Amino acid sequence: MKTFTMLEIGKTAIVEKPIPTPGPNEALVKTTASLICTSDVHTVKGALPVENGRTLGHESVGVIAALGSAVTGFTEGQRVAVNAVTPCFECSYCQRGFTSQCGGLLGGYKYTAQVDGNMAEYFLVPAARGNLAPIPDELSDDAAVYACDMLSTGLMGAEHAQIEIGDTVAIFAQGAVGLCATIGAKLRGAGRIIAVESRPERIALAQRFGADDIVDFTAGDPVAQIMDLTGGVGVDSSIEALGFPQTFEAALACLKAGGTLSNIGYHGENPAPLPLDLTAWGLGMGDKTIRTGLCTGGSDRMSRLFTLMTTGKVDPTVMTTHRFGFDDVEEAFVMMAEKRDNIVKPLITF
Amino acid sequence: MKTFTMLEIGKTAIVEKPIPTPGPNEALVKTTASLICTSDVHTVKGALPVENGRTLGHESVGVIAALGSAVTGFTEGQRVAVNAVTPCFECSYCQRGFTSQCGGLLGGYKYTAQVDGNMAEYFLVPAARGNLAPIPDELSDDAAVYACDMLSTGLMGAEHAQIEIGDTVAIFAQGAVGLCATIGAKLRGAGRIIAVESRPERIALAQRFGADDIVDFTAGDPVAQIMDLTGGVGVDSSIEALGFPQTFEAALACLKAGGTLSNIGYHGENPAPLPLDLTAWGLGMGDKTIRTGLCTGGSDRMSRLFTLMTTGKVDPTVMTTHRFGFDDVEEAFVMMAEKRDNIVKPLITF
Amino acid sequence: MKTFTMLEIGKTAIVEKPIPTPGPNEALVKTTASLICTSDVHTVKGALPVENGRTLGHESVGVIAALGSAVTGFTEGQRVAVNAVTPCFECSYCQRGFTSQCGGLLGGYKYTAQVDGNMAEYFLVPAARGNLAPIPDELSDDAAVYACDMLSTGLMGAEHAQIEIGDTVAIFAQGAVGLCATIGAKLRGAGRIIAVESRPERIALAQRFGADDIVDFTAGDPVAQIMDLTGGVGVDSSIEALGFPQTFEAALACLKAGGTLSNIGYHGENPAPLPLDLTAWGLGMGDKTIRTGLCTGGSDRMSRLFTLMTTGKVDPTVMTTHRFGFDDVEEAFVMMAEKRDNIVKPLITF
Amino acid sequence: MKTFTMLEIGKTAIVEKPIPTPGPNEALVKTTASLICTSDVHTVKGALPVENGRTLGHESVGVIAALGSAVTGFTEGQRVAVNAVTPCFECSYCQRGFTSQCGGLLGGYKYTAQVDGNMAEYFLVPAARGNLAPIPDELSDDAAVYACDMLSTGLMGAEHAQIEIGDTVAIFAQGAVGLCATIGAKLRGAGRIIAVESRPERIALAQRFGADDIVDFTAGDPVAQIMDLTGGVGVDSSIEALGFPQTFEAALACLKAGGTLSNIGYHGENPAPLPLDLTAWGLGMGDKTIRTGLCTGGSDRMSRLFTLMTTGKVDPTVMTTHRFGFDDVEEAFVMMAEKRDNIVKPLITF
Repeated sequence: MKTFTMLEIGKTAIVEKPIPTPGPNEALVKTTASLICTSDVHTVKGALPVENGRTLGHESVGVIAALGSAVTGFTEGQRVAVNAVTPCFECSYCQRGFTSQCGGLLGGYKYTAQVDGNMAEYFLVPAARGNLAPIPDELSDDAAVYACDMLSTGLMGAEHAQIEIGDTVAIFAQGAVGLCATIGAKLRGAGRIIAVESRPERIALAQRFGADDIVDFTAGDPVAQIMDLTGGVGVDSSIEALGFPQTFEAALACLKAGGTLSNIGYHGENPAPLPLDLTAWGLGMGDKTIRTGLCTGGSDRMSRLFTLMTTGKVDPTVMTTHRFGFDDVEEAFVMMAEKRDNIVKPLITF
Repeated sequence: MKTFTMLEIGKTAIVEKPIPTPGPNEALVKTTASLICTSDVHTVKGALPVENGRTLGHESVGVIAALGSAVTGFTEGQRVAVNAVTPCFECSYCQRGFTSQCGGLLGGYKYTAQVDGNMAEYFLVPAARGNLAPIPDELSDDAAVYACDMLSTGLMGAEHAQIEIGDTVAIFAQGAVGLCATIGAKLRGAGRIIAVESRPERIALAQRFGADDIVDFTAGDPVAQIMDLTGGVGVDSSIEALGFPQTFEAALACLKAGGTLSNIGYHGENPAPLPLDLTAWGLGMGDKTIRTGLCTGGSDRMSRLFTLMTTGKVDPTVMTTHRFGFDDVEEAFVMMAEKRDNIVKPLITF
Repeated sequence: MKTFTMLEIGKTAIVEKPIPTPGPNEALVKTTASLICTSDVHTVKGALPVENGRTLGHESVGVIAALGSAVTGFTEGQRVAVNAVTPCFECSYCQRGFTSQCGGLLGGYKYTAQVDGNMAEYFLVPAARGNLAPIPDELSDDAAVYACDMLSTGLMGAEHAQIEIGDTVAIFAQGAVGLCATIGAKLRGAGRIIAVESRPERIALAQRFGADDIVDFTAGDPVAQIMDLTGGVGVDSSIEALGFPQTFEAALACLKAGGTLSNIGYHGENPAPLPLDLTAWGLGMGDKTIRTGLCTGGSDRMSRLFTLMTTGKVDPTVMTTHRFGFDDVEEAFVMMAEKRDNIVKPLITF
Repeated sequence: MKTFTMLEIGKTAIVEKPIPTPGPNEALVKTTASLICTSDVHTVKGALPVENGRTLGHESVGVIAALGSAVTGFTEGQRVAVNAVTPCFECSYCQRGFTSQCGGLLGGYKYTAQVDGNMAEYFLVPAARGNLAPIPDELSDDAAVYACDMLSTGLMGAEHAQIEIGDTVAIFAQGAVGLCATIGAKLRGAGRIIAVESRPERIALAQRFGADDIVDFTAGDPVAQIMDLTGGVGVDSSIEALGFPQTFEAALACLKAGGTLSNIGYHGENPAPLPLDLTAWGLGMGDKTIRTGLCTGGSDRMSRLFTLMTTGKVDPTVMTTHRFGFDDVEEAFVMMAEKRDNIVKPLITF
């Protein structure tokens, strides 16, 4: 089978590998559609220690090609999606509800990080009973694939922000995950959503998804702009969806006492410690909570995200700015890495 | 000043009373608009033990006419709304966050129940610093008045239902409070909202506010219909917005194990104990939670509800089916009591 | 192997059955100690629909005799305990955190209810990776076996009661589960624990476990007594640990507005609906929450309960009022059913 | 009246001032006992911007000397305690439950920071209805005064740590607040408490209050020691009770994925940003939550703390290592500033 593989840091190729065989609790899925993620770009740059020859990708849907001997409740040929996080469900972390941290820190993120990813013609699914999410008939692969990471992570960003109905929320950066955090803030009942972004096409998407105010950070200090918009008071919750020290600092500084900063940006590109401004943090006593998280996995999560799409409450497909066949995946990857042509998400079909 | 007063059980009239004088922590508000509530109807029927001669009403907005000597931060002439619940904020119940239970069971509900209500040309506001909610310039009185009870109670119904993003929620009855619970379920990110209702005009409003499926209980057992709609599984949360034993029982029966029943219906009309079906309740071990509550009060709550309206996320004014001048308040009251002419909410202007 | 089996309603015997073979995700445990539970008594009385010939018991510890082919992380001969609830961890109920409701209402309770129980020389453990809980070397079987149901259920009763530090809590009935709820209320920081009980030996245990006041219901209405003790105010939380309509009603009536009633009593003996007193319930608006639950399962839970015992914070073994060899299990069962000789918990050794 | 006053940075004296008169919502209290706090030491060092001539102190109890005209429910001569935090209860921060942040960041901390403190013969109490906490007859002033800050803050540290029953908790530093966090961790049901401390007398108090393991940071890296104690896994929750970058970093590093770091240390002495180690923080995706807070105020809180003392569950008076009359307050202050003679808390009597 063909796989999109990282040969070494900075180098990728389509590589032929044997189709794997599922173990007793696994499933084999034949891929129909995938999304390329900025995390793949980070990985190829060397941000994640991955052995050479690892298949990339963690946002894929397809049909069940084979089921392990102990996997019940599914049939071959069934359309399924699989979350980027594939927990075992049984370790102590999973039992406590931290399935993204399966087995330890960030351990639920297995594709590419620990085993071959799923940007390939076939891929394996561990703990298949809990990780295979049947796609409703009325939902297209193009839409369902957004549940694998973008919607699950972005909405988690809003869930962690502890938004109360009518709250004011600032969201820093409107890439695909930030846009999904905007969708999420609206879904949790935010009264006013302030999106920090400068690219016109992303601003347009943010407004479509529910942003009430746009703060363009190229037009002045975003914290000062947010303070102006809120009468000097600040926001109830802020969501960091970029992973830069400056946006993190701003997300803390614009936050009211008692508020929550929900971080979903990946801070792995810069190894220096993240500076926590003491005044913004209330000297460690301001009742400001800082939460973090990885993508929320499992079929139950996926199934609820599907419901939002089938009832028409969320339509993520407007983020699909580009489409490629699998043979052109390298071209798509380069575009994503270089953020060319106002790309948001490129969809790969098989 | 003119007041709409309950003379005795079953009998109301417009009665002249002196304009009251605010104590040090109180304010006097000159009324501009009010809504009549089904609770007023219950009260006049005798469901609430109230002394004769009490002014009715608890959903009013107006302008500040006078401020007590110790009330700071407001000015005379300012447009304000006041919630139906007016807590003291300082008793142990309020300090624990149960402001609706100020001083004890249901004690935050003061208008009509403990003191004169606010369906009058002027009314007093206790603990004015916390209870006066300035109305934003861009918000009409006609919209702001919905924050006093309907939106606050209905949205609380959804908040108490512990809805997770993508959940399926059933809401029993789509009167004004039930409709606001539908608004609330959508605001908390419900994936699928099933509204139980039979009147066409209320069904239309429910759909406008976010209901995905309608269950008409005149067409068959609503629990069976909900089970059919959910593949035999039931719903994640149910909201009881009527106050009948049958709807309460149905709200429990259609609920999945682990789900939450949020009650906002008033069960005071029938004094018999409410029967809790043991099978539906999982014999007391099904992880089904039953929550209750009264309207959430205080200026902070009001201000967040206003934000939802000023950013266009919620428009409750479509529920205003009828309008009356204060001199015709008795006619409005009779229409409300008899649910004539497909009335949902009558607005009274002064 | 020998098993303690229900032949038909009202009739039990020691019955010889073949030693079962574990499937790929199962384990076989050789039993060393068990506790008889009042639930076994209920089952034999016919309260639970169980097919004839089912092995009884769900509170057992032992050593691993064999492991399924897909079970990693354990070794034969290892000392383990297994919770009364044995979830699959992967269904949608488990993924949402309601492992006791695995697969649906009460579905996590598998032993005796769905498959053979574990009051037998050997027993099978489903989803063994998540359900086998290694017993620390320093902990005896006699103590560890209390984690299987008594401690897990009783402490859950206190956890569900949403106790804040310093709260006043009333606990209705001090059988083994009620006593464990008393332990739990102390562990959650209750300031004052009021235990409702009349038997002297249970009162003594309650006081040992942290009860500050005893209400003897044979000496007068317990609600009136609790109101006297609390200056007419009532309690912040109440825990129902008996399963009678009267205790449930009292637990609701003595509860302050804003409080939580946590039910852990089994209400399956009397099929009539449980009457919910409307005044006590605040007419459905008193912010009184009613929670329920079954025993919390899984190895992570077990391991935390073990920690409480190894650090000396909890010693449940004082509840072991009687000890029997397995050959005398029927005698123990009859004593338990008839609550003879001030029995609290009888320990069976193999 | 005599007051203990900060003349300028680094300089204090007993200064005579007029007895203040309470406004309509205030009370005047005649002081009977106070505790000196390390925060007073920080203030005199210049860590808090305070105008010269401000009375110090925020941990005092006494008897009501006079009541404002609008204060009901209390009588002159009544014994009362007042929390270090004295919220207004009515601003939007208070209404949302963040009473310590009354009016904005750290705004609930009024004594010394905004108005004269209460280490004086008399002191004023704002929002007296909510801030006066009657002391039960059976509780001494010497014990009650610990509720004002030490117990309220330390227990909050444990409450914010989101401890589940049986969890393992590390607490960094066992000064008076850290010791109270140890009390709090035990009250929330921690299974194992690891206290980080090196002074023998504080170690002894920590063990008395519930610490199971002691990590002496002078004997090696505390994180490595905690990892050793927990089999390489780390702790479920950590509490930072010192306010140093090193302890904060260690509290994050020893924390399991999914855990909570509860900060109660004051980080105001060193103005440099606090470095957040990215690996320990899981690159912003490790589900590690960082919470902060100031002392929890209000009479309801105080009254619950009193219950813990009257039922014998908590005895803080063993932390009173030294006692002084008010005339010797300066000597006590110097001892506290220099941590002389193994001082933990000095009690001042009037």
